Amino acid sequence: MDVKPARRTDSHFVASLEKAMRVLEAFGPEQARLGLTELSIETGLDRSSVQRLTTTLHQLGYLDKDATTKRFSPSIRMTELANRYLWSDDLVKSAMPRLIDLRQALGETINFSRLDGTDIVYTARLPSSRTSYAAMIIGRRVPALNTSSGRVMLALREPGERQRAIEEWPMQRFTSQTTMDREAVKRLVEEAAETGYSIAENELQMNELALAVAVNRNGEPGGAIHCSVSGTVWTRERLREDVMPRLRDVANAIG
Amino acid sequence: MDVKPARRTDSHFVASLEKAMRVLEAFGPEQARLGLTELSIETGLDRSSVQRLTTTLHQLGYLDKDATTKRFSPSIRMTELANRYLWSDDLVKSAMPRLIDLRQALGETINFSRLDGTDIVYTARLPSSRTSYAAMIIGRRVPALNTSSGRVMLALREPGERQRAIEEWPMQRFTSQTTMDREAVKRLVEEAAETGYSIAENELQMNELALAVAVNRNGEPGGAIHCSVSGTVWTRERLREDVMPRLRDVANAIG
Repeated sequence: MDVKPARRTDSHFVASLEKAMRVLEAFGPEQARLGLTELSIETGLDRSSVQRLTTTLHQLGYLDKDATTKRFSPSIRMTELANRYLWSDDLVKSAMPRLIDLRQALGETINFSRLDGTDIVYTARLPSSRTSYAAMIIGRRVPALNTSSGRVMLALREPGERQRAIEEWPMQRFTSQTTMDREAVKRLVEEAAETGYSIAENELQMNELALAVAVNRNGEPGGAIHCSVSGTVWTRERLREDVMPRLRDVANAIG
Repeated sequence: MDVKPARRTDSHFVASLEKAMRVLEAFGPEQARLGLTELSIETGLDRSSVQRLTTTLHQLGYLDKDATTKRFSPSIRMTELANRYLWSDDLVKSAMPRLIDLRQALGETINFSRLDGTDIVYTARLPSSRTSYAAMIIGRRVPALNTSSGRVMLALREPGERQRAIEEWPMQRFTSQTTMDREAVKRLVEEAAETGYSIAENELQMNELALAVAVNRNGEPGGAIHCSVSGTVWTRERLREDVMPRLRDVANAIG
């Protein structure tokens, strides 16, 4: 997340805290373990700052340190922070039993995501064994325009805002077939506004078909329920006929 | 987590960071939304510190603020921090597809937990709709001695350490039948050391039967796989016969 320079002059702003979060944010799928030099490069902070921050985060139990390589990695306590968020999220709380029933009835992957800025973030995941690890764990952030969940949530916004988002929000290529043409995205969002659901094919992974339905909370997108299936055994038609009404029922029940 | 006073005199220790984490840790199941006064009481920090820290955490996107009540709550970004941890956890990564298959084959709740200090923390959860919300979400922390997972992991430690843990680690009563007698806990841990599994009944919830098997990583408990079922339809015998060998297979495969 960008921190606007203006904030730094705010007397209420704790600069060392911003730096500490920058250190935690340096870790990711391709950078699960980082040493002081790497962290300094990744964060743009000088080595002594990085050392003080990692030492403190390690002492507080939020970073693990490998005894041999001296590299740091986020600790299990990160899941406890997620736990604190999940307790405060009434929508996920009320959705969970129904999402589990859906997963059981369909035998396919069920996700719950929310719009956060220009991205979606997955907060509940009930995977099938076909699912990749990235798609199994909560907290994954993906540009909204590249996902069925993002498009169907965006479709709930008023037309002007929708149009601005389609023009300006970032996009990311995940496969050779990821939709990168904003006119095509516009058509998909308009379609979602009309039908109330959105289907994505090969967007994040090849051979993946996904259907998403938005949860309408007083006219605002509260979240999206999303079912992901194999393109080998499913068709768009079957998704629409067998899965869409069930997702719609759950979305209505918790909206 | 207790921060020893000695740390504060360490020139490498960033005191404001410790205070910020104390603010985040104040939130929990019964305290999902907190105002400045409540946070000040919970953390023991003066109101102006709490104000500076919450303002910064809010600006950085880690705390949400209710526009009406002005109360704070942990934001969805906490799930992203958990995501960073999960990417660094090779054991959970390799266990996940097998845990999903187990969940599918048994039709019952499957959990993966790790020992962290004197507690266990759940890092992967594949719930059934019978499961309570607390038992559905990752990052839950429970005293190890009160759980089958904790006992079976402790059983992998050498006898002296095991004994010290049984005498000293904290325990917590969850139901009227939670085992609070350390002699009884000792018998359960010894039994787990002999059989390689542990069964808990009504310990965290009434009418819950749970079976756990430890993952042995070079003689150290790498984690525990745990299956939770209803005491109404299951018996200890059936758990032992139908579930235990499958859990053992998965534990062997990933250990």
